[in-house]
Amino acid sequence: MENKINKETESLKIIPLGGLEQIGMNITAFEYGDSIIVVDCGLAFPEGDMLGVDLVIPDVTYLKDNIDKVKGFVITHGHEDHIGGLPYVLRDVNVPVYATKLTMGIIEKKLSESEDLLKKVKRKVIKFGQSVTLGDFRVEFIKTNHSIVDAAALAIFSDAGVVIHTGDFKVDYTPVFGDSIDLERFAQLGKKGVLALMADSTNAERPGFTPSERTLERTFDTIFSEHRDTRIIIATFASNVDRVQTIINAAYKFDRKVAVEGRSMVSIMDIASDLNRLSIPENTLVNIDEIKNYPPEKTVLITTGSQGESMAALSRMANGTHRKISVGAGDTVIFSSNPIPGNEKAVTKIINELLFKGADVIFQDAHVSGHACQEELKLIYTLVHPKYSIPVHGEYKHLKAQAKLAAELGVPKDNIFILRSGDILSLNEESAKIVGKAPAGGLYVDGLGVGDIGNSVIRDRQHLSEDGIVVAVMVVDEYSGSLISGPELFTRGVVYVKESEEILDEATRILTKDVSAAYDRGITDWGKIKNVCRDSLNDFFWRKYKRRPMILPIIMDV
Amino acid sequence: MENKINKETESLKIIPLGGLEQIGMNITAFEYGDSIIVVDCGLAFPEGDMLGVDLVIPDVTYLKDNIDKVKGFVITHGHEDHIGGLPYVLRDVNVPVYATKLTMGIIEKKLSESEDLLKKVKRKVIKFGQSVTLGDFRVEFIKTNHSIVDAAALAIFSDAGVVIHTGDFKVDYTPVFGDSIDLERFAQLGKKGVLALMADSTNAERPGFTPSERTLERTFDTIFSEHRDTRIIIATFASNVDRVQTIINAAYKFDRKVAVEGRSMVSIMDIASDLNRLSIPENTLVNIDEIKNYPPEKTVLITTGSQGESMAALSRMANGTHRKISVGAGDTVIFSSNPIPGNEKAVTKIINELLFKGADVIFQDAHVSGHACQEELKLIYTLVHPKYSIPVHGEYKHLKAQAKLAAELGVPKDNIFILRSGDILSLNEESAKIVGKAPAGGLYVDGLGVGDIGNSVIRDRQHLSEDGIVVAVMVVDEYSGSLISGPELFTRGVVYVKESEEILDEATRILTKDVSAAYDRGITDWGKIKNVCRDSLNDFFWRKYKRRPMILPIIMDV
Repeated sequence: MENKINKETESLKIIPLGGLEQIGMNITAFEYGDSIIVVDCGLAFPEGDMLGVDLVIPDVTYLKDNIDKVKGFVITHGHEDHIGGLPYVLRDVNVPVYATKLTMGIIEKKLSESEDLLKKVKRKVIKFGQSVTLGDFRVEFIKTNHSIVDAAALAIFSDAGVVIHTGDFKVDYTPVFGDSIDLERFAQLGKKGVLALMADSTNAERPGFTPSERTLERTFDTIFSEHRDTRIIIATFASNVDRVQTIINAAYKFDRKVAVEGRSMVSIMDIASDLNRLSIPENTLVNIDEIKNYPPEKTVLITTGSQGESMAALSRMANGTHRKISVGAGDTVIFSSNPIPGNEKAVTKIINELLFKGADVIFQDAHVSGHACQEELKLIYTLVHPKYSIPVHGEYKHLKAQAKLAAELGVPKDNIFILRSGDILSLNEESAKIVGKAPAGGLYVDGLGVGDIGNSVIRDRQHLSEDGIVVAVMVVDEYSGSLISGPELFTRGVVYVKESEEILDEATRILTKDVSAAYDRGITDWGKIKNVCRDSLNDFFWRKYKRRPMILPIIMDV
Repeated sequence: MENKINKETESLKIIPLGGLEQIGMNITAFEYGDSIIVVDCGLAFPEGDMLGVDLVIPDVTYLKDNIDKVKGFVITHGHEDHIGGLPYVLRDVNVPVYATKLTMGIIEKKLSESEDLLKKVKRKVIKFGQSVTLGDFRVEFIKTNHSIVDAAALAIFSDAGVVIHTGDFKVDYTPVFGDSIDLERFAQLGKKGVLALMADSTNAERPGFTPSERTLERTFDTIFSEHRDTRIIIATFASNVDRVQTIINAAYKFDRKVAVEGRSMVSIMDIASDLNRLSIPENTLVNIDEIKNYPPEKTVLITTGSQGESMAALSRMANGTHRKISVGAGDTVIFSSNPIPGNEKAVTKIINELLFKGADVIFQDAHVSGHACQEELKLIYTLVHPKYSIPVHGEYKHLKAQAKLAAELGVPKDNIFILRSGDILSLNEESAKIVGKAPAGGLYVDGLGVGDIGNSVIRDRQHLSEDGIVVAVMVVDEYSGSLISGPELFTRGVVYVKESEEILDEATRILTKDVSAAYDRGITDWGKIKNVCRDSLNDFFWRKYKRRPMILPIIMDV
């Protein structure tokens, strides 16, 4: 190394590559000296205006540009918004992945679906309390609680100090599986001195303490005992293994068989069973095809689709397009979930459909959150008492709510940072400030294409979706440039076909006049003729209908 | 009349023409003998999948087909979902309109914006307690409370019995303007015997009693006294005149000037002031252009946009595109509203933007609902004890919740009807049943076009919005049918322009081969050639990108 780093004065850099502008796409680079490590690698689902986009994955240009420094991915837990980007990103940034057992199981399942990634990518399972050294960093995995088992907080050590990243977490003193969050370790680290805390903001607006996952035992007991005469269908998050465990336990207690429906749920249950994160009493689980052999009131169906996803199992059951299960009178459907913001309408739609089919629907009070509320955040701040606070995970209003809490708990206001995508925060014991901007943000995935549609394509789709398209075709003589056929008009998404003939006749008449007038004025340049087309048709459709279809003039020469 | 009706055995028919499938589009026909009256005439705002649709108005084919019977519209209150369809429907169904004072004021403002409707349509203002006779019907207007003043319930008398339609309502013992709901009249009618009750279901899932509008006096007092040093901006529903009154009173008390922003709010305030439904202390209201002449902490801005509507004043203030007002540090923004289902995400987006600009945002507990909760519904059922219950206003789950309440309060289950759009419910003292289906539902309004775009156009727009369009143009010889130019491809909304050249070259090569092969096999029929185009291009884009753009083959002859 030519320039030996002076470790005394070197700063740690923290760079959210997904971050605030791409809610849910959690990926943060930590850079110190010649080393970069990356916490999580999530994906985001498209917002309503990202037409035709299937997924949004992180732009990792910064990692590619500094590929020699990148030592590995350290992953907090196995949710899509923390691991979903890996199969895309690892193709270009092939560095080792470190995670706890179930998290790694889910990652490996994902990688196995993508060509030869499972073979090419190095992976290491880390136990709670263990550390891994990655260049100038050492990262320790700390036990937490969340709506998926094996969730970890990370203590990220460098010579600049220790940063604690909570991942998504809650404090659960009576978890369904495994231990309670390792508060002792948070306290120990706090005692030694913590440079910065990056904590989950999702529930930072909510007062109080999130109830334990175990409180749902009683909830399900009550529901099961009040619905002894009906089939029970429960929709929940595929990855919430503890919830599935609680439901299975209730079913066993009430002597019901359990079937599971929905590809993602079956997949995660397989992984969790293999890794001993789920224990299913013998003769309880039956295949979805066999469930019809049992009396309905002796069965429970656990299914995906609790967010109203139109292609998920519950949605298909509700609208009558599910091949195996139809829902109706005599069914009790339980949403063991809350709608994620933005999904309220879709969830309500399914509830309405289920009620209309005659099912009894329970959509409140059968869920607890996996995220820390204000009192839990206060507990962590009090144990850790960090020098700097960098709220993570959530919309701006959630981050802001945590920032307010942090200030109340004694973190100086100037030491609290809400970072935007690509912000490079440089910090050490002396000071912290944003020193630059890295390329960051989201790449659109549409079908097999990654990043090949951008804002201009999306804008075109928005335009098309609003008012459709009018195509005007003209054929001109290659040599003389004179018009020999057309203009002819074709439309899609503008008006009813049966009414369009008359409308198009009128538009064609006017357009022909305008184009002829242009030719008469000696205009033959294709660009100019196309502009005449656009102006003429824009004017016609606006004047006549107050609509602005996309106009696509095409000139062919022969 | 040739066929004299036997009034003893004649049934009343109730037909929701908007109804369940078009939430919010409230319009119900009542038919008895030779008379039809219509309660309300609302419009609906488009669902997310109704691309490019501005409004949805009711299909009144049934009224047009029976125009000689139609005696008039009786309107419960002045909200868009109860009156918004009038300017469209009255063009074809020009019958008199009956409403209370403020409701009529708002209707007249609407009609004045549509050609000569104000001149052509007969109107009559009805006072609470008054009746109007309309053919075989008599309709009495009964005072209720709601989030707009002058809201009425209707007692609809015919020889079949009396039907009470509550409109949207709540029970407010201490309203801001006017009297409390006329419970005595409900009780009197109940004592004489009520055939059917059609009551507002919006809050039927919620236990308890909706708080009085007047409770917000204290809320605003508290907020104003806690924010003496900042400008206050309050977003609420334009039509909630009582809310505006409460805010103005608070402003006056705290010695602040008030400006109003947003076209619809200014308009309704003008109407309400003219009709003495709003009383503004002298020297309190100032023009939006003058508000900058006062110290910010001495001003209040009341604005539209509380639902996150992207074109409304608050949204433009938040994103920095408002011409007169910019929001930032030193502003307190209050949402005196709850998000209507489906608007949650849009509202959150604005809250995030406002917080990011440095404003303080209060978005909880500064609103009360205008709809009756369970205890209020129980009160009305207990006073009215109808023979039949027909829950109205709300999604299926809300109607179902009221149906459950009705059953608990003694209405036999078989006497409770949840009607779908167009259902013809025939009822009298002996029996009630659905006897047929009238044409009903929604017509899409896009720009100036009413009903000229239907589902096929919407499906095209959905297809275009997902994957864009590929246009393939070929020029053939008029006589020989042989291909003399093309195929050439043009795309919009498919892929980046910079990448598309290469892709289109490949697609063109394959398409040219496929089309040539078809010609070689002697195929010249345009329909068949177009199918070859579609197959070739569909296959190419699916195989290569897993995308399905719309394919539009065009053949021109010269």
